[in-house]
Amino acid sequence: MRILFYTPQIHVQEAWLTELQQALPEATFHLWREDAIEENALPADYAVLWQPPAAMLAGRSDLKAIFHLGAGVDALFKLGDALPPNVPIFRLEDAGMAIQMAEYVSHAVLRYFRRFDEFDAQARDGVWKFLPPRKKEHFTIGILGLGVLGCRIAQSLQEYGFPLRGWSRSMKNIPGMDCFAGDASLGEFLSGTQVLVCALPLTDQTRDLLNHTNLATLPQGAYLINVARGAHVVESDLLALVQNDHIAGATLDVFRQEPLPPEHPFWQEKRITITPHIAALTQRHESILQIVAKIRSLENGAAMSNITGRVHASTGY
Amino acid sequence: MRILFYTPQIHVQEAWLTELQQALPEATFHLWREDAIEENALPADYAVLWQPPAAMLAGRSDLKAIFHLGAGVDALFKLGDALPPNVPIFRLEDAGMAIQMAEYVSHAVLRYFRRFDEFDAQARDGVWKFLPPRKKEHFTIGILGLGVLGCRIAQSLQEYGFPLRGWSRSMKNIPGMDCFAGDASLGEFLSGTQVLVCALPLTDQTRDLLNHTNLATLPQGAYLINVARGAHVVESDLLALVQNDHIAGATLDVFRQEPLPPEHPFWQEKRITITPHIAALTQRHESILQIVAKIRSLENGAAMSNITGRVHASTGY
Repeated sequence: MRILFYTPQIHVQEAWLTELQQALPEATFHLWREDAIEENALPADYAVLWQPPAAMLAGRSDLKAIFHLGAGVDALFKLGDALPPNVPIFRLEDAGMAIQMAEYVSHAVLRYFRRFDEFDAQARDGVWKFLPPRKKEHFTIGILGLGVLGCRIAQSLQEYGFPLRGWSRSMKNIPGMDCFAGDASLGEFLSGTQVLVCALPLTDQTRDLLNHTNLATLPQGAYLINVARGAHVVESDLLALVQNDHIAGATLDVFRQEPLPPEHPFWQEKRITITPHIAALTQRHESILQIVAKIRSLENGAAMSNITGRVHASTGY
Repeated sequence: MRILFYTPQIHVQEAWLTELQQALPEATFHLWREDAIEENALPADYAVLWQPPAAMLAGRSDLKAIFHLGAGVDALFKLGDALPPNVPIFRLEDAGMAIQMAEYVSHAVLRYFRRFDEFDAQARDGVWKFLPPRKKEHFTIGILGLGVLGCRIAQSLQEYGFPLRGWSRSMKNIPGMDCFAGDASLGEFLSGTQVLVCALPLTDQTRDLLNHTNLATLPQGAYLINVARGAHVVESDLLALVQNDHIAGATLDVFRQEPLPPEHPFWQEKRITITPHIAALTQRHESILQIVAKIRSLENGAAMSNITGRVHASTGY
């Protein structure tokens, strides 16, 4: 069994290859390189990859499956015609990412709800001053996207008793949460949301969803947390709504251009908290166990759940 | 029925009196004032108070019970002989405080674990830089005090899968947590704790517990979160251990002197996060419901659980 591997993160390529090989000794793993033309031409059974160049996959109808080292597969679908048709694509199912997302969002929610950002700013100035607490009953958190990530985020927030609502493409029934579905109910969902958490997959339908119209539908003083993709947010619209005080602030882990360019106005806006795309990191060990189990199942001809088909990239929001 | 009321927080005295009166219309509430000598001499059935002056309670053997508007009753016991003997003292049982403590501690833990303090500092400098994550399996959180507050804190942290251990005076059995009890096991408890959360009541036995000896027993790089009382910590010992890098930092809500004096060296130490005693605020509505229910039970001669007796102040750690 021959397996192609690729990640653009050069400093971890060796570690991935070594651990994959240990977990699946019956296979031969090859690091895909643009200049290894001869080796690239050899047949392969599987590809395990993250953010591959188009040349890696173009015309590879020999593959039995592609495994993507992430939950969001938008980078793959961007390849368009270079993606071989009829090859099933598997994305990571959680593999430790959902709990990291829940940690990230819980921290951002608690920080804003309990005004810890303001207490920190006061402390830096040597100021001891009480600030009146926000009221939990007026602090409805709305989660966009109720897949594995959105549901895990909701589970953690429920622990603190926040009122929760969620929006997804098709109707979900989640205990303790008011659920909304589809474009027709998006306005109603947003208008009652004080803290908006974006946990959507990036598709043609969700790109630019957080534009002026939708962000302005949030009540005055709302807060945004984005752990999905930068392209969900029209950044100039968000900035304008923060600067005219309709949006109280935002915690953003993802941006349309990453790294966020030095001249980007978000850096200068104190009400926007920036993290460098670290909300959920791929956990190598958990990911490899998951991928190897799936390869073994495929080799045994088992029916496989959670396949990201070729029809569209949106998987379970 | 005549009930004395007191809080030093002048701006909320009226609100408390109004809401108490509404909740218990059959009683007459009096705001205790030092200069109202004649009124003070009238008999009273109950006292509802927070941080009362000694003169309010001295010699008041007519009281059937004292209700303290807080969970920590150390301020009452400091009154010593001014506290009338044989009058049962009730403290607030939770009344919304435990969940606030859990919010505070969860935020501080997630902030340190996920390095959000460092990401914030980077962002203030316009820096986009990955920082390697800490490992959860090496991030054991030890909770000092397993009463209502300590257990609620543990419940929230469990949600994120942190390894947990707890220490209390008498042995507790809490699922998912390694429990230690008594002075003899304190060293063993501390030596395996990476993040120490203090949720103890303040008693003669726990005062100054976090001194140089005990803090130095924590492993190198440990972190401290104190939501209990300032007097649990020998502040100069903590500062020295932070400055020589044995302790990585601390998040402190309480201090030996509050407000923390402007000249206090904690203000200058960036690794110490200061909040102005806001981890858990008394919730007026919940507290009044609880106190009124207890007064009605006492009037009906019911046996009452959770009485803080006069023997010692330590209730359930």
